[in-house]
Amino acid sequence: MNLLSSISRNIYPLNQKSMDAAQKKWDSLIHPKGSLGRLEEICIQLAGVYETEKFDISKKAIIAFAADHGVYDEGVAPNPQEITKLQFPNFVNGKCGVGVLSRFAGASVVAVDVGINCDEKLEGVIDRKIRKGTSNMLKGPAMTREEAVKSIEIGIEVAEEFIVNDYGIIGIGEMGISNTTASTAIISVITGQTPEEITGAGAGLSEKKISHKARVIGKAIEINDPNPTDGIEVLEKVGGFEIGAMSGVILGCAANRIPVVIDGFISYAAALIAYKINPGIKDYLIPSHNSAEPGSQVALEMLGLRPMLEMDMRLGEGSGAALAFNIIDAAIYAYNNMATFDEVGMHI
Amino acid sequence: MNLLSSISRNIYPLNQKSMDAAQKKWDSLIHPKGSLGRLEEICIQLAGVYETEKFDISKKAIIAFAADHGVYDEGVAPNPQEITKLQFPNFVNGKCGVGVLSRFAGASVVAVDVGINCDEKLEGVIDRKIRKGTSNMLKGPAMTREEAVKSIEIGIEVAEEFIVNDYGIIGIGEMGISNTTASTAIISVITGQTPEEITGAGAGLSEKKISHKARVIGKAIEINDPNPTDGIEVLEKVGGFEIGAMSGVILGCAANRIPVVIDGFISYAAALIAYKINPGIKDYLIPSHNSAEPGSQVALEMLGLRPMLEMDMRLGEGSGAALAFNIIDAAIYAYNNMATFDEVGMHI
Repeated sequence: MNLLSSISRNIYPLNQKSMDAAQKKWDSLIHPKGSLGRLEEICIQLAGVYETEKFDISKKAIIAFAADHGVYDEGVAPNPQEITKLQFPNFVNGKCGVGVLSRFAGASVVAVDVGINCDEKLEGVIDRKIRKGTSNMLKGPAMTREEAVKSIEIGIEVAEEFIVNDYGIIGIGEMGISNTTASTAIISVITGQTPEEITGAGAGLSEKKISHKARVIGKAIEINDPNPTDGIEVLEKVGGFEIGAMSGVILGCAANRIPVVIDGFISYAAALIAYKINPGIKDYLIPSHNSAEPGSQVALEMLGLRPMLEMDMRLGEGSGAALAFNIIDAAIYAYNNMATFDEVGMHI
Repeated sequence: MNLLSSISRNIYPLNQKSMDAAQKKWDSLIHPKGSLGRLEEICIQLAGVYETEKFDISKKAIIAFAADHGVYDEGVAPNPQEITKLQFPNFVNGKCGVGVLSRFAGASVVAVDVGINCDEKLEGVIDRKIRKGTSNMLKGPAMTREEAVKSIEIGIEVAEEFIVNDYGIIGIGEMGISNTTASTAIISVITGQTPEEITGAGAGLSEKKISHKARVIGKAIEINDPNPTDGIEVLEKVGGFEIGAMSGVILGCAANRIPVVIDGFISYAAALIAYKINPGIKDYLIPSHNSAEPGSQVALEMLGLRPMLEMDMRLGEGSGAALAFNIIDAAIYAYNNMATFDEVGMHI
């Protein structure tokens, strides 16, 4: 049995007893029952994940993966491919969006190359390159099934390195020119929405180019005909290495009872791949911000997620997940530090 | 000329030159233009408020006001009136929702009694009591016009005390059993929506009681017939002392070029009163979270605001404003700490 199968067999539901205890604790704190809304829900979910109602703000990290995409050749992205390798080292030197937002939230950032189209070593970046970018999905599968499994297993392995080092919450991020194209293809296949309905501007395409991108996605799906119930096959045929690795982080965290904060559009696609491998991962996901990409709503609906933040952000990188850490930490702080009705002698 | 008139004459538009400079600065930072969405917008607005594109995270405070309401006698609230006086001291001892969330965000909290129905001094609470609660608006105006002006002026005065002590951003909060009733009445009068359309559960009313509450609000508006274009008159006839004081903070901040983070439903009503006194205050408002009260959308539309946070919170107190401080601080931190394209030698 390979790592992926073994991990996928070890995902269990949330612990209801701990969730009930967390609910009871909230009800004892000086506020009308339920009036802190999703701050309460986050802590109740965390209690179910951790199997205890007693937890505090723990070490947190953004794990980001980068890779390039063969479909870039079809003119589906507004930026040159070399941006992937140029920008990725900035994730860890704290200079880009996810870098500064993670530092602000007190989170570590790790950057893992799983398929950037370059030969040189990138400073500060962990090298787990599968190959220098996927194949062009317009001409056949983006990767082999073995590569798809490998990308997921890299995600599991990186997540587990953090988990053994006592990280208690993980966010996911990414970088990869053309990866909204792959993500839209994944979401189209898994949700059944047509590419015309859900293809968007990505990092800033014109209207005309969006139609072209939708046609490319439609044709790639037609040529590869992935089975929508097989997450690995969808990844193999129209996915990306970084997307597979993000799915792996989700699966690895769920199997280790660690919550995963997902970012925007690319995260939704990765979560759908993981969901098709094991639907039990849903319980371990915490949404962050809403993506403006038109495919977001159907993806979020299938995952049963409603983002907390409406920021009109479309940067990716993991920037929304890093921002959401502040809200999650605030929720935990309130849960642990509000007084009880008994303590203040108030009884309503 | 009284304080209110003098303040209201000194509210000016945002500084476009500073906003342009802030926009230019964002465009120089390593991310696709505009991709940090509302994190960028917040900083551009702050540049316009402060009249400089160079600013950093500054001292921040939640100013909260409490008062009781004569309309409580009509059975419009699920909780006993004495909750106002029991809970309000917990704002400043850091034990309640706004207390812990402010401490988490590094914000001070001040609690000002402008009309709680009690004779005793409340620990840690500033006494600016106008009288022990408004009159029952079902039997005539909630307060006199002089009291309405006084409540607003108290808000201005308290805000200015913080502003002279170098606080650079202020959030507003409140406590007052029955104040969703007064707020719904204000929003109904100013937006023209009927009480039936916009009355909600407040702190937790049953469906049957919501209908009763809507009838009470409708009758109070009928009896008092406030002029919807006169903010002070709306406050006088169907408002509350804490709501007037919150409007005063908004006006005082706007006149001193300080941004105001508004909280939930009661804040929206206070903002509408301030808006009717001087529409220029709109530029100085930063929304925080979305309230579940049905009157929220019409109020937010008139104010041109879209909340950043979807937390299903209905606590009030200023808890949503305190939570939003984390996002605003993150925005400022990103603005000041991301690298420029020139610095990293990347040109796209």
